[in-house]
Amino acid sequence: MSSILPIDSPFEAPENGFQAIRFDGRVFHLLDQRELPARERWLQLDDLDSVIAAIRDLAVRGAPAIGITAAYGAVIRAREVGLERGPWLEGMARLEAARPTAVNLSWAVARMRRAAGEAERVDLARLEAEARAIHAEDIAANQAMARAGGSEIGACRGILTHCNTGSLATGGVGTALGVIIQAAKDGRVERVFADETRPWLQGSRLTAWELARAGVEARVLVEGAAAALMAAGEVQWVVVGADRIAANGDVANKIGTYALAVLARHHGVKMMVVAPSSTLDPAMENGQGIEIEQRAADEIWAAAGLTEAPAGFAAWNPVFDVTPGELIDCIVTEQGVHRPPYDFSGAR
Amino acid sequence: MSSILPIDSPFEAPENGFQAIRFDGRVFHLLDQRELPARERWLQLDDLDSVIAAIRDLAVRGAPAIGITAAYGAVIRAREVGLERGPWLEGMARLEAARPTAVNLSWAVARMRRAAGEAERVDLARLEAEARAIHAEDIAANQAMARAGGSEIGACRGILTHCNTGSLATGGVGTALGVIIQAAKDGRVERVFADETRPWLQGSRLTAWELARAGVEARVLVEGAAAALMAAGEVQWVVVGADRIAANGDVANKIGTYALAVLARHHGVKMMVVAPSSTLDPAMENGQGIEIEQRAADEIWAAAGLTEAPAGFAAWNPVFDVTPGELIDCIVTEQGVHRPPYDFSGAR
Repeated sequence: MSSILPIDSPFEAPENGFQAIRFDGRVFHLLDQRELPARERWLQLDDLDSVIAAIRDLAVRGAPAIGITAAYGAVIRAREVGLERGPWLEGMARLEAARPTAVNLSWAVARMRRAAGEAERVDLARLEAEARAIHAEDIAANQAMARAGGSEIGACRGILTHCNTGSLATGGVGTALGVIIQAAKDGRVERVFADETRPWLQGSRLTAWELARAGVEARVLVEGAAAALMAAGEVQWVVVGADRIAANGDVANKIGTYALAVLARHHGVKMMVVAPSSTLDPAMENGQGIEIEQRAADEIWAAAGLTEAPAGFAAWNPVFDVTPGELIDCIVTEQGVHRPPYDFSGAR
Repeated sequence: MSSILPIDSPFEAPENGFQAIRFDGRVFHLLDQRELPARERWLQLDDLDSVIAAIRDLAVRGAPAIGITAAYGAVIRAREVGLERGPWLEGMARLEAARPTAVNLSWAVARMRRAAGEAERVDLARLEAEARAIHAEDIAANQAMARAGGSEIGACRGILTHCNTGSLATGGVGTALGVIIQAAKDGRVERVFADETRPWLQGSRLTAWELARAGVEARVLVEGAAAALMAAGEVQWVVVGADRIAANGDVANKIGTYALAVLARHHGVKMMVVAPSSTLDPAMENGQGIEIEQRAADEIWAAAGLTEAPAGFAAWNPVFDVTPGELIDCIVTEQGVHRPPYDFSGAR
């Protein structure tokens, strides 16, 4: 389960981060995020059902990483069905439904449908080229964001981040974490701090693992400690990703982001959001329109070793929050650094 | 292990909260906090070694509850050694060392030493009376705080609290949680919200259990969600306890408290601190002098089901933070409601 073929490609360039997603032309190799940091287990996927299961069961997460996985899944499906259009399309419908709320998933499948052509047999060469293009574009966007965002950060003592936005969530070096690793490698930041990010622990499980792997000194904290960290002068920047950005710069991101923005402003700490331009939603006027999903109480009590919430216990468990654009010092996309007042109404 | 003798005493009055600490004259009954909320297991302690183990191993926590437990432990010790002064004193030295940083522990043992008298045989009747007095004084202080603090809270939609400050941490109805339950029983608050309180989960394990037991509708949230909760207009008050209060009103309390104070001020939410006057430290000019204990990284990764931090992973894990008095709208002790600017330099 653990042998990975060396691949001669730009995907393997060290400046593009650790590749948790690899396609060797036949088999799709995926680092199973559910097992981290306890074990580095690789999944080897060579049929569509396995790809769908990996997406549905969260072996891979992070919108860009899900999109790339789906693109390679479409290639695998083409071989699996002997290039026959009918069964290939049937597979694409199932693939798209693996996580219906992931925007990048349907976006990637739509691109693969166009690349398949109109003939009775899908065009394998074009499909494979399109999947590699989706992957390469994400790597390039990551690099552009890392350079643009990294150069915004002057010499500082520390940066705080939230959730996981690195190689495990994207095809390349990541969004916010790409900027942070760039700043660390350029010697402009002494220490990186990562919120553990309740309730899913993406910070203590995934971001800590990525930073250790990149050789960047990092410390994990509980979210409640972020204010004390700022008061102690340990961080000068908060750098986070985004799930959706409204036309006025309001940002929907992992729960806890808005708290960091308020605390940062109170302490004179700067706040940067890093996300590809595909995250911009010019049709959404402001963050008020973004519906916030509430999840089950059980997630909260998993940290106490319980499989479900005790009887009579309830939770208030939103997945995302909305940070007003006026609390954000800059928004970095692959197109450059945007500053307030934001206006993305003409984007895309 | 679970039969509790009914005791005819003010300790059992329902308005004084749930009694997690009970002394039947011979045996000390203690609800084991480590097992909550999965199981309500009672410990029955009838020798000093068991009392020391219960304190050291966190079967009981919360400064007032620890003090009361130690006082009854002194009574148990007197019987155990046939009232002989030498071995009794030796036991008190060991009891005091069970958790050296708990101020209430040494304070309670000092009171019991004075009550023991000077004779070769310690005075059992006076010891038992003193232990019951320490317990009764805490119950009365809790009641006074619940009344004073409760009456500060007008009709509101919701209150947010942090950590555990109820019957499990005190001898009576609690400090902050006593105020909240009072306000809820008086029909002045619709809903109570409790931070889960990382890394020890006192909110999701203990406060949720106490509120369910008291019949108060409560919801637990991860700390990162507190800002979104305030922005949604769900809470009008944050009510918390304190571990130490400096002369100028700066408050040391469980990590995460300071974040709540900053967020509350930003959102126009009021902040109340509730603590007995024994928490006031008039000799400490301000919060700058309070040393903040850092704990091991392993605690953070316990939530991910790991027994220790993975190799190469580090944490920033302070137990307490300091909230400046100017962010606190009122401080409630058993002596009444204090308002800014605070001056406790003449207290005690």
